[in-house]
Amino acid sequence: MSEEKMVSLNAIDDQLIEKARKEGIETMWDRDKAMKARCGFGEKGVCCRICAMGPCRVSPVEGKGAQRGICGATADTIVARNFARMVAAGTSAHSDHARDVAHVLHMASRDGNYQVKDEKKLIALAQEWEVPTEGRDIYDVAHEVAEIALNEFGKPFGTLRFPNRAPAPRQKIWEDLGITPRAIDREIATVMHSTSVGCTADAESMLRIAMRTSLSNGWGGSMLGTELSDIVFGTSTPRMTEANLGVLEEKQVNILLHGHDPCLSEMIVAAAQDPEMIKLAEEVGAEGINLGGMCCTGNEVTMRHGVKIAGTFYQQELAVLTGAIEAVIVDVQCIFPSLAPITDCYHTKFITTSPKAKVEGATHIEFNEEVALESAKKIVREAIENYKNRKQEKVFIPNSKSQAITGYSNEAVVKQLDRVVNSHIDPQGTVKPLADVLKAGVLRGAAGIVGCNNIKTKHEYSHIEIMKKLIANDVIVVTTGCAAQAAAKAGLLSKDAIKLAGKGLQAVCELVDIPPIIHLGSCVDNTRIIRLVSAVADHLGVDNSDLPVVGVAPEWMSEKAVAIGTYVVSSGIDVFLGITPPVTGSPEVVDILTNRIEDMTGAKFFVEENPLKLTDMMLERIEEKRIKLEKTLNLEAVEKHEPQPAL
Amino acid sequence: MSEEKMVSLNAIDDQLIEKARKEGIETMWDRDKAMKARCGFGEKGVCCRICAMGPCRVSPVEGKGAQRGICGATADTIVARNFARMVAAGTSAHSDHARDVAHVLHMASRDGNYQVKDEKKLIALAQEWEVPTEGRDIYDVAHEVAEIALNEFGKPFGTLRFPNRAPAPRQKIWEDLGITPRAIDREIATVMHSTSVGCTADAESMLRIAMRTSLSNGWGGSMLGTELSDIVFGTSTPRMTEANLGVLEEKQVNILLHGHDPCLSEMIVAAAQDPEMIKLAEEVGAEGINLGGMCCTGNEVTMRHGVKIAGTFYQQELAVLTGAIEAVIVDVQCIFPSLAPITDCYHTKFITTSPKAKVEGATHIEFNEEVALESAKKIVREAIENYKNRKQEKVFIPNSKSQAITGYSNEAVVKQLDRVVNSHIDPQGTVKPLADVLKAGVLRGAAGIVGCNNIKTKHEYSHIEIMKKLIANDVIVVTTGCAAQAAAKAGLLSKDAIKLAGKGLQAVCELVDIPPIIHLGSCVDNTRIIRLVSAVADHLGVDNSDLPVVGVAPEWMSEKAVAIGTYVVSSGIDVFLGITPPVTGSPEVVDILTNRIEDMTGAKFFVEENPLKLTDMMLERIEEKRIKLEKTLNLEAVEKHEPQPAL
Repeated sequence: MSEEKMVSLNAIDDQLIEKARKEGIETMWDRDKAMKARCGFGEKGVCCRICAMGPCRVSPVEGKGAQRGICGATADTIVARNFARMVAAGTSAHSDHARDVAHVLHMASRDGNYQVKDEKKLIALAQEWEVPTEGRDIYDVAHEVAEIALNEFGKPFGTLRFPNRAPAPRQKIWEDLGITPRAIDREIATVMHSTSVGCTADAESMLRIAMRTSLSNGWGGSMLGTELSDIVFGTSTPRMTEANLGVLEEKQVNILLHGHDPCLSEMIVAAAQDPEMIKLAEEVGAEGINLGGMCCTGNEVTMRHGVKIAGTFYQQELAVLTGAIEAVIVDVQCIFPSLAPITDCYHTKFITTSPKAKVEGATHIEFNEEVALESAKKIVREAIENYKNRKQEKVFIPNSKSQAITGYSNEAVVKQLDRVVNSHIDPQGTVKPLADVLKAGVLRGAAGIVGCNNIKTKHEYSHIEIMKKLIANDVIVVTTGCAAQAAAKAGLLSKDAIKLAGKGLQAVCELVDIPPIIHLGSCVDNTRIIRLVSAVADHLGVDNSDLPVVGVAPEWMSEKAVAIGTYVVSSGIDVFLGITPPVTGSPEVVDILTNRIEDMTGAKFFVEENPLKLTDMMLERIEEKRIKLEKTLNLEAVEKHEPQPAL
Repeated sequence: MSEEKMVSLNAIDDQLIEKARKEGIETMWDRDKAMKARCGFGEKGVCCRICAMGPCRVSPVEGKGAQRGICGATADTIVARNFARMVAAGTSAHSDHARDVAHVLHMASRDGNYQVKDEKKLIALAQEWEVPTEGRDIYDVAHEVAEIALNEFGKPFGTLRFPNRAPAPRQKIWEDLGITPRAIDREIATVMHSTSVGCTADAESMLRIAMRTSLSNGWGGSMLGTELSDIVFGTSTPRMTEANLGVLEEKQVNILLHGHDPCLSEMIVAAAQDPEMIKLAEEVGAEGINLGGMCCTGNEVTMRHGVKIAGTFYQQELAVLTGAIEAVIVDVQCIFPSLAPITDCYHTKFITTSPKAKVEGATHIEFNEEVALESAKKIVREAIENYKNRKQEKVFIPNSKSQAITGYSNEAVVKQLDRVVNSHIDPQGTVKPLADVLKAGVLRGAAGIVGCNNIKTKHEYSHIEIMKKLIANDVIVVTTGCAAQAAAKAGLLSKDAIKLAGKGLQAVCELVDIPPIIHLGSCVDNTRIIRLVSAVADHLGVDNSDLPVVGVAPEWMSEKAVAIGTYVVSSGIDVFLGITPPVTGSPEVVDILTNRIEDMTGAKFFVEENPLKLTDMMLERIEEKRIKLEKTLNLEAVEKHEPQPAL
C-alpha cells in the first residue's frame, strides 16, 4: 500500500485492517465509509436539539434556509451553546475521574489496598490548604485533604482553591472577567442550565460561562486528578518502556488495560504481579502475564510502573484483531462500543468495570474499591482462564515496537534541571534553568502537544510531523494522552530523538539528559503543563501569556479536548487545533475564539488542518511572544529566528 | 379564519400575528415556515454530536445507511445518551433555580428585602432535617436550613434528604434499582460524563443513570425550589385573578414579568407597589403600574400575589406585538431570543437580569440580591420612564381575559379538604377525604397536567381538550406551568367550570369548594403533585404506582419536561406525552420507556399525538390502576366505569 493511503503512520495498522477484512470483521474504517459525508449543519455547529420545538437547523448563509431557530436563536447562539455543552461534558469527565481518586484517598489506610505513596506531596498539599500536619498520623491528614478535595466539587460558597496557584496577573484577569470558577459540578450545572431553552442567547456571555467551567476543569477536576493520583499512586519518575502492538507476547496472557482512571488500573497492575495470579497463569500454560496499556490508562500505568504501551485510541479495535488478547479491561471514557462485537469474533473477553460505562455485550464485573485488590484479581483471573481459548490460527502479533522514556512529572523535570544548576550560585529545585534558556532563546519556545486520534486525519501523521518540526526549530515539546503515545511509537520519546532537534534544543537535552519530547502523562495531566508554564512565568515575574509557549491538539476528537483547549486559552496559552471544531457556522463565535478572546485572556485559538502550516503558525506565534516577553522583561531585542525544516 | 387553521384556541392570537404581518415583524410562525421539515435523524434521536469524529447519523432501518457511529455506538446508545443529556439539562435548570432561592434564604434577615414569610413551614423543615429550633432566632434556623439545602447540591457523601419523603415501598424500589440520588449537581455531572465518548453504551444502564438524575430534580432541586420559595415568599393560598393578553391596561405602565425564579419577580412586585414608583408612574401620565405574568414567573407571582397572567410561553412575542408593554423583564429559562428584535420594533424595553441568561440585543441590568429592592426599583423605573415612548397608533390590546382561581399549595388543598371532615370522627389536616373519594370511585382518578406549549401542535388545544374530557370523566385535574395558564385562559380554573365535570367530581368540587382543575403553581411545583400523590399513597398504605393517577404533558417542549416526566415515572406515576420525544430511532429505548420501565418502577410512558386518543388511554389506564388498587387494598371489585365524552 502506498504510504499516502495508509490509515496511519504504522504499516502494521493496515495489515491488521486487512486481517479484519479477510475475517469479515467490521472496523471503524468500514463504519466511516458507511457514514459517508458528515452532516453539514452539525459540522458547522448550527444544529440545535435543545428543545422539542426543533430540531432546528439554521443556515449560516443569509437567504439560504432559516436564519433563526423557532425560538429566535441565531447561529451565534446555537453554536455558542453547543460549544459550551462540549466544555461541560469534557469537564464532567475529568471531574468524575478526580472524584473517584479523591474517594480512594479518603478510604486509604496503612494496611489497605490504597495507601499514601507520596507523603511529601500530601504534606505539601495539606500545608497549601492549611490542614495541620504536625504530629498527626499521615492517614488522618490524607482523609482531611480528601474531604476538602471532595468539597471542591460541590461547596456552596466561594471559588476553587487551585486557581490561587496561577501567576498573580492571571488570577487578576480571571477576576476581572468574572470567570474564577466556583465548585466544579456547579459550573457544569450552570452551563447545562444556561444553554437550555430560553437562557443565554449571547455568544460572548455563553463563551465566558464556558471558560469559567473549563477553568473548573484545568484548575479544578483535572488538577485534583493529577495531584491526588500522585499522592495515592506515587509521583511518576522517568522509566524506559516499549510502545506499539508489538508489545503483545505470544506466550503470555495478554491483558489490554484501556480507559482512564488509575484507581482500577493500579489494582490490576498489582493483581498481575500477585504470585497467586502468576502461578495461575503458569498453570494454564502461559509464561506469564503481560499488560499492555492503551489510551490514558496506558499513560497512567506506564508513568508509574513502566507498563508497556500497546497503542493509542484508534488502535483499540486493531489490538483485538491480533487475536492475542485474553481480556480488554476498561473503566471509563474513549472505549469503543464496537469492542463488544469485535471481541465476540475472538476468544477475547471484553470486561467493563464501571457503573458509569457499561457496554452492551460486554462482561460487566463491577470494580469495588472497598475490596480493590480482590476485585482486580477476580478480573485478572477471567483473563488468565481465557488463555486456553486463544486460537493460534487467528493470532497475528505485528513485529513493531519502539523504545520510549515515559513518566516525567514536574518534580522529575525539575530534578533533571537541577543537573545544570551551579549550586554555588543558584538554588536547586526550581525551573530557573528552563526559564533561562527560554529567555535567552537557546530554546525558542515550548509546546504542549496533547489529545486524541481522529479518523478525519491520517492517524498520528499530524502529531508526529508537528513534533518533528517543532523540535527541529528548537521548540521543546511536552506531551500527554494519545499524542504522547504516538510519540512513543514513533521513537520520539527516546534520547535517540535528540538528533532530530535543533542545535539549541540538542544542547539542552544533552546537558539536562532528557529526550526532546517529554512524556508528562495522561489527559488529566495537562495540568502538569499549565503548572510548569505558570512556574516559569512566576520565575520571570510575568504572566503565562507573555511566554513563547503553545498548546497543540492536532488530532483531537473528545469533548474533553474542547474543555482542555478552553482552559488552556483561558490560562493565557495559545491553542492550535488540527481538527476544526463545530463552530464555523457562527462568524461571531469564530471571531471570539480566534481573535477577540486574546483581548480577554492574552491567548487565542488557531485552527488549521494542514499540520505543517499549523506548525508554521506556531513558530510565528512563538516568535511574536518572544518579542512580547522581551518587551515585558525590558530586554534587548534578539535576532529574529527563521523557521527550519524538520530533520 | 376557520377555527381549525387558528394557531391556538384564542382568536386574539391570530389577530396579533396578522398585526405582525402587516408591520413586517417576524414571529415564530414565520420561522417555523422557514425551517420547513425537521431533521429526521434529530427527531428520531439518532444524531450523535458527542465527539468530533462525527457528527454521526445512524439509520434506524437496517440496510439503509450506517448502522453504527464511528466508535461503534448503536442507535440504542445514541438515543439513550441524547435522552439522558436532556434529563441532565432539565435537572440543571431546576437545580440552579432552587440554588438561587436557597442563597436568598441564606441571606434573609428580619429587616432585609428577603424575609422568612412562612415560619411554620421553616420550622417543619428544620425539624425534618433535625435542625434545633427551640428558643432559637428564626433567622438562625433559616440560615442553617439554607446551608443544609445548599449542600444538597454538592455533598460528597450519601444520598439526598427528600427521597425519604416518598412512600416506603417507593424508597425500596429506588434502592433496589440503585437510583436513589446523590448530590444534585453530581448527578448532572455523572450523566454528562457517562454520555461522553466511550462511556455508557448500554441503553438500560444509561436510562437508569438518567432516572437517578431525574430523581435529583423531582426529589431534590425542584422540591427545594418549592419548599424554600414557600418559606421565603409565603406558601400560596387561592386567589382570584385574570388571564390572557386582555389583562394589559391601556392607561397604565404595563410590565411583563417572564421567566422562572421568584427571587427577582417577588422584588419586582414589591417595587411596583412602592409609593415612590407609583408616584413616578403618575408623573409620566400613567394611571398606575400593571404587572402581567408569563410562563412560570407568571405562576409564581399569581399564586402568591394574584398578579394577572398575561399569557403562556407561546404568547411572549404576541404580548410585545400589542405595542402596550413598557418593559419585558426576564430572568432565566424559556425566554425567546427573538424578544430582542421584536421589542426593537416597538418602544418596549427588553431587560435581562441574570448572568445565566444574557440575550444579545437586550438591555442587561443585572439583578443584585444583596440590594434586591433597590435593584428591582432600578429595573421598574426603566419601564415607567419608557411609558412616554408608547406609540398609541401601534397599540392593540385584545379584549380577551378570563377569571381564574390560582395558587393552591398542598397546604391550601388540605385546608379545603378539611371542609368535609367530620371532626368528631376524623383528624383535620390530612388527605383522607381525597383518598376516600378516590378509593370509593366518586373520583375515578387524578391527573397532573403540566408543561409547555409547542409549535408542533395547535397551541393549548391539547391541554384544554384533555382537561375537559378528564373532568367530564370524574378525573380531578391538578395543573402547573403553562398548562395551568392555558386552563386559566380557558376559564377552567374557575368554579364555573364545575358544570363541565362529571357528577362525582361535581359533587366533590361543590362540597370541598374548589374548581375541578386546580392550579398548583410553576414547573418546579410539580413536586407539589408528587407529594400530594405520595400523601394519598401513604394514607392508604400503598405505593404511588397503586393509585389511579396520571401525569400528562400534552404540549411539552423543554428539556425540563423530559426531566420531569422521567422523575414522575420513576416515582411510580404514568406519564402521557402529547409530543413524541426524540427516541423513536431506538426500538430498545422505546421498549424500555413505554414498556419495561414498568417492571422497574410500576409506571411507564405513553405517547400519542392525538389528545383525545391520549385521554382515552389515560382513562383506560386509570381504570386498570383502580383494579390494581382494589386488589392491593383487598377491596371488592367495583363496577367498571365507561369513559364519557367531554361536556
